[in-house]
Order: sequence, then C-alpha cells, then structure tokens
Amino acid sequence: MTDIASHPQPVTVLGTGLMGAALAEALLKAGRPVTVWNRTSAKAEALTALGAVHAGDVAEAAAASRLLILCVRDAPAARTVLDAIDPAPGRVVVNLTTSSPEEARDAAARAAARGLDYLDGAIQAGAHIIGRPEALLMYAGREPLFRAHEETLRVFGPDTRFLGADHALPALFDLALLGLVYELWIGYLHTLALIGAEGLPVGSFASAAGKIVDDLVQHFGALATEVETGRYDPETFGRLVDHEVISGRLVEARASRGVDAERLRHVKRLIDRRIGQGLGEQGFSSIFESFRPAAMP
Amino acid sequence: MTDIASHPQPVTVLGTGLMGAALAEALLKAGRPVTVWNRTSAKAEALTALGAVHAGDVAEAAAASRLLILCVRDAPAARTVLDAIDPAPGRVVVNLTTSSPEEARDAAARAAARGLDYLDGAIQAGAHIIGRPEALLMYAGREPLFRAHEETLRVFGPDTRFLGADHALPALFDLALLGLVYELWIGYLHTLALIGAEGLPVGSFASAAGKIVDDLVQHFGALATEVETGRYDPETFGRLVDHEVISGRLVEARASRGVDAERLRHVKRLIDRRIGQGLGEQGFSSIFESFRPAAMP
Repeated sequence: MTDIASHPQPVTVLGTGLMGAALAEALLKAGRPVTVWNRTSAKAEALTALGAVHAGDVAEAAAASRLLILCVRDAPAARTVLDAIDPAPGRVVVNLTTSSPEEARDAAARAAARGLDYLDGAIQAGAHIIGRPEALLMYAGREPLFRAHEETLRVFGPDTRFLGADHALPALFDLALLGLVYELWIGYLHTLALIGAEGLPVGSFASAAGKIVDDLVQHFGALATEVETGRYDPETFGRLVDHEVISGRLVEARASRGVDAERLRHVKRLIDRRIGQGLGEQGFSSIFESFRPAAMP
Repeated sequence: MTDIASHPQPVTVLGTGLMGAALAEALLKAGRPVTVWNRTSAKAEALTALGAVHAGDVAEAAAASRLLILCVRDAPAARTVLDAIDPAPGRVVVNLTTSSPEEARDAAARAAARGLDYLDGAIQAGAHIIGRPEALLMYAGREPLFRAHEETLRVFGPDTRFLGADHALPALFDLALLGLVYELWIGYLHTLALIGAEGLPVGSFASAAGKIVDDLVQHFGALATEVETGRYDPETFGRLVDHEVISGRLVEARASRGVDAERLRHVKRLIDRRIGQGLGEQGFSSIFESFRPAAMP
C-alpha cells in the first residue's frame, strides 16, 4: 500500500461545472493530486491555476487515478462519459451526477456490463457548502468499495453516509428530501402569510416556528416506526377526530384572511376520508394509510 | 411587598380540565398556594389531594388570589367565567383558553369593559409536557402586567414569551404554528411513502430528513426578512426557473410510484404562475407574492 500521509491518493474529477469544480477544489485544498476533464475545456483549464492537471480526454483523465468522480450535467451525459472509461484493477467510478432512481440503476447496470467498479451518490448541498458540515452526501453500491474510498469522499463533507447496496438509494433519498424541503418551505411561507394578514410583523414568528419544527423533528424516527408497523399511536399527536375540528378551524382562519387554504383543505380531506371509514379514533399519522404505496411491506 | 421566598404568591386556576389540572399541578409542585374552581366540581375536588383549595364558585376562587389563570373548554365558556369575576386592585386574569384571534380580542374587550386587568395567552404543548422546556407559552397584553407575573407564569415552562400588546397574537401564533406542524407532518409522511414505494425501509430515512429540516430552520429568520422586504435572493435556494424543472421531476417521481402528488402539483403551479408572469429569475421564496395578503405592509 502507498503511504497516504506522504503520497496522498490521486483523484480524477470528470465534469467541472459548478458542482464538479467545487468537488475538485475541495480535493485540491485537502492536498490531493487532482486530474480534471470537462467536455468544454475552458472550465477545466481554470482549475489548473489551483494545481489541477487538465487531461485532454476521458481516457487520459481516467488513467491518472484509481478513484474517478463523475459529476456532469445529467444522466445521458454521464452515460457517454461512462462508455469512454475502461475498467482497470482498483479503478472505481463514483457517479455524483444528479439522476433519477431509475437512471442511477441504469448507470450502475451499464458500469457492471463494462466491468467497472461503481458507486452511485447524491449531494444534498449547494456547491458553495461542499466540505462543510451542512452538506449531506449519500452513497450506495458494494460497501467495501465505499469503505476503501470513504476517507477521500469525506473531503466533500463530514456528513458522508453509506445507504446500502441498491444504487437507486441516494437518488431516491435526494428526491424525497427535496420534496420535504418544498413542503416545509411552502408551509412556512403560508404561515407567514397568516401572520402578515393580521398586519403583524412576520419576523417575530421565525423563532417560535423554529422551535415547533425542531420539536417535530425529534419525532421523525417514531413516526417512521408507526408507518412501518401500521400502529398509529393517538398519544403522539391526538386522534383524527380531534384534528377534524382543529384542521377545520385552520382552514377557516386562512380562508377568512384571504390566505390560500388549498394545502390545509387537502390535509382536512385526508382526515375526513379516514373518519368516514370509521377510523377516527386512530392517531393522526394513520392518514398515511390513505396514500400507503402498494409496494410497502 | 410580600416576601415571595417565604410567602409565595397564591394563584387561582379557573377550569381544571386536562390542561387546567396540569397548570394547577405545576403550581402546586412549585410550592404556590393554589385555589381551584371547575364547573363540574369533581375534577377540581381531585386536586385537593395535592394541596389545592377547592372554591365553591368563581367569585370565591377569584377572591383567593391576585393572579387568576383561566383555562376552560372554549371561548364562550371563558366569557361566562369572566362575567363572574369582579375587578379588584392588582387582580389580573390570564386567559389560557384555546381561542381564535377574534375571540381573544373579544375577551380582552369584555375584560376591559368590566375594568379587569387582562392578559391573553396560548399554550403550544400537550398537558403532559407542561413545565418542560419543549412547552411554548405565549402571552400578549399590557407588558407591565406580564412582567409582574412572569416568574409565576414560567412555572408552566421556561420558554414563556411576551409577544406584544395585541391580545390576538398568542392565538394567531398558535394557529399559524399548528398549520406549520400539519404541513411538515403530512410532507414527511409523503416522503416516507416515496421511500416505501420502492420497497425500501423508511426508518433509515428519518435522520437524513431531520438533518435537512434542521438546516432549513436555520433560514427561517432570513426567509421572514425576504417576505418583509419583498427582496427574494436567488442565492438562498435557487431561481424559480431552476425549481420548475426540479418540482416537475418530483411530481413525476411521486405520481409514477402511485404516491399522492397533489401537494407537489400545488407547489409547481405556484412556481409556474410566477414564471408565466416573467418572474422566473427571482428566488424561490418569491412565490409568497402569489399569496401575499392585502393587509401586509
């Protein structure tokens, strides 16, 4: 084995758009020898000022390192690059290109067909927070491959997680997290509208909102268990029949102030449907049964 | 002045349902002399075993303390009790009955007409967490009244906040917070459905979801400022045109897996509407303008 301390492992970054360049810069800052390639060479060339070696084509870039980070515009672009990489002992492609779960599985199958060792990954972070604790980096594939390069991958952020063997996992978590961000963000903006509709300053509401959300986050694990087991504890957040009244009051509070109540009407419809089925004594989370996917065990 | 250490201030609790009883118990545990009254006497009687004095009617209960905590079933019930309290020097009614903002203002006006000093409050907590740091207690009215009794009110929880002069503020914040809880809770359950639809265990998703939400909460103050100033920074969370693509992908991801995509379609409609108005370069939070209430400055 090479002595990592004195001879740090070289890394190749394929694709130096906004995110790829941030990844390459993080590696350079961490003292790793970095080779870069990009479809349009100007963007890659700019990184040579920071110490990167600029390779003329994918094959040359791939030959420079065992660890290849692939981060291009989209899944079709990633496929084209994958097809230009030849397998070699110890060579691993880590694909951080934003992909759908299906695209991630396709890319993994394509890499396998070519004899390439392959990990799929997803980045929940803007390029400007690469390397910082707020960044969340998720990987999937054969675990030994991940462990072999984990130390290097942590350069992109200390919160680097291995999710499992299914290559679709990072893309799926990434999508699911984005959906959650949308719902919370929109929900928060709607609550600010309710405060603003009374002519009150919305700024004073932010810390109370933060406290309530922090408290709910503490229950995320327990809620996942309720969903997994199908046992919805009324103690967690009250019974559906209680929420029929409360959600009705909320819809009225928004609507009477001219604030869009569509999202809360949807909540109330989900509650009412379960009550209509005679299930009003169940806990609030049991509305999950209204949209429980067929594939769930 | 009475020496509080040796002669703790007596408190009267009017209404000893689930929440009122929890408030009375917290005061008794903190060593305060407590007088209780309830419309049906059995519930109040039970508290005498813990050291409370059980008063036979509202007037007798009110005469026992300067600080009267009012916590009954609903606003009409609170009105009936208020009408039975006579004003006296130093006597303050703190109304913790769950009310709408309008009902809170009505109760304050009624108290004022009777010459009673009055604070309105709201409790964001279940009865079982009264006294604990997770509880959030909010008050409004004349600030000197609040400050005079703040120490006693903190017995109900260390996170006790004074919001301002408008008596409607606690009820309004309470409603707004509940709306936010609904949206986050439902949003989280939908993300679990997306994970579950792939046949994957949802439990592993909880901590990633918690991290993303915690990160977004850090931005709540800045988002409130964006809404207040009407300046929506594309750096915060990208431009609307970026989110047109991403939100479309998310709708597709849910819909193709048989997961209810209605809430995300609503998000996408808000985005598309702004883009249709030629405002696609603005930051994501600018969708707030689609539902900005007329009353906001």
